Amino acid sequence: MTNATDPSAALVAANEAFYDAFDMGDYQAMAAVWAADHPVACVHPGSETIMGRDAVLRSWHDILSASSRPAIQCLEPKPMLFQQVGLVVCIEALAGGRLAASNLFVMESGHWRMVHHQAGPLNTVVPLSGPRQN
Amino acid sequence: MTNATDPSAALVAANEAFYDAFDMGDYQAMAAVWAADHPVACVHPGSETIMGRDAVLRSWHDILSASSRPAIQCLEPKPMLFQQVGLVVCIEALAGGRLAASNLFVMESGHWRMVHHQAGPLNTVVPLSGPRQN
Repeated sequence: MTNATDPSAALVAANEAFYDAFDMGDYQAMAAVWAADHPVACVHPGSETIMGRDAVLRSWHDILSASSRPAIQCLEPKPMLFQQVGLVVCIEALAGGRLAASNLFVMESGHWRMVHHQAGPLNTVVPLSGPRQN
Repeated sequence: MTNATDPSAALVAANEAFYDAFDMGDYQAMAAVWAADHPVACVHPGSETIMGRDAVLRSWHDILSASSRPAIQCLEPKPMLFQQVGLVVCIEALAGGRLAASNLFVMESGHWRMVHHQAGPLNTVVPLSGPRQN
């Protein structure tokens, strides 16, 4: 899947590296996935947005060192390129359900590095009813 | 909030235009928010990812013409700039709950236009338990 001459393939490979780091519980690999020279943010499922590399990596350290860390399989990665920025939308398959994920990357020194991750549940009833204010 | 000389302010203004289009139920304004010359995708809360401008706009047409469209207030927009790409993470406050949203924009002819939107519930129990596969 890695192909230095194909930015789209390299983007999908960077996305895979993110899930590999999670799967291995490898904090150093996870830290290497995330951008160092750009602003970063992360929305874990059901949680408030975390801003900044230090806070984002701290959240991953906690997740990767937890005993209850789930197995996640990344399915159907779809890369989208915008010059030096790349987005991968994919499905995260877990034992307990499926999440939709958006993973955003920027080029740093010739490598795609993550600047944003949001994952949220699929097939979930979200409360959308209620009176309009106007 | 609009300030042509400040890309970050213009980005937040573009994000506001997205929520204004939703609030007004204005499909033409929503169509103008979305990029025309770049790939686009959208993850509505609890739903599969929708790919491509035609399918994304069709989903918004359905949402904007529905009788049960909720009132949504965008709170705490946080702009992040990556050259010609901008990300706004924010809270969507609804009568029934709160969502975390990631809104991605690219520059097209000097204007920020949306290429990706993902919203998912906050403070929701997401099933993360289950046996690991390795």
